[in-house]
Amino acid sequence: MAAEVAAEVAEQPVESNGAEPVTGTSAPDASEHILGLRGRIDEIDRELIALWQERAALSQQVGRTRMASGGTRLVLSREREILDRFREALGADGTQLALLLLRAGRGPL
Amino acid sequence: MAAEVAAEVAEQPVESNGAEPVTGTSAPDASEHILGLRGRIDEIDRELIALWQERAALSQQVGRTRMASGGTRLVLSREREILDRFREALGADGTQLALLLLRAGRGPL
Repeated sequence: MAAEVAAEVAEQPVESNGAEPVTGTSAPDASEHILGLRGRIDEIDRELIALWQERAALSQQVGRTRMASGGTRLVLSREREILDRFREALGADGTQLALLLLRAGRGPL
Repeated sequence: MAAEVAAEVAEQPVESNGAEPVTGTSAPDASEHILGLRGRIDEIDRELIALWQERAALSQQVGRTRMASGGTRLVLSREREILDRFREALGADGTQLALLLLRAGRGPL
């Protein structure tokens, strides 16, 4: 019984609930490789989230500073620059990403 | 004439073409503050682009590894985990961001 539980725990990285392997493959080598790659993806996602939050806060601070000094609410030439930057680096996905970033940076209207 | 050109160059960080200040404000202190904030935003954007590209490459490698071992093309439980992660951290924008990331990670179908 204890051995069965130990075996089940040991299997957890590869089997979720028996219905579908968590890596989508039952080949042990491939599964191990996938788990390693996913570990780096998880790190990247944490970095992406932190950068997203920092960027939104900075961008909203830009907007507040500008309006407090009597400036415009938005600067279209800057928004165009951001769109171009992401589109040139990432293609159509970059445009979509930039539109999300710009919206987050504007904050509540 | 040379002095005029020099003055025009010196003004470039603040004035784009005379029609609209590049920072959207004509107040020097606010403009300088905004340029500093934008400098950090530009750094963040470079990091976001690099992470995006690394993530897409890793995720496509996961898919190739899985299929080469006879596994499934996608693992829906993993995609759900990614969606939840971004939505919990960033709200509705996070869901949109995760959908873009997942699509980039699938690569050409």
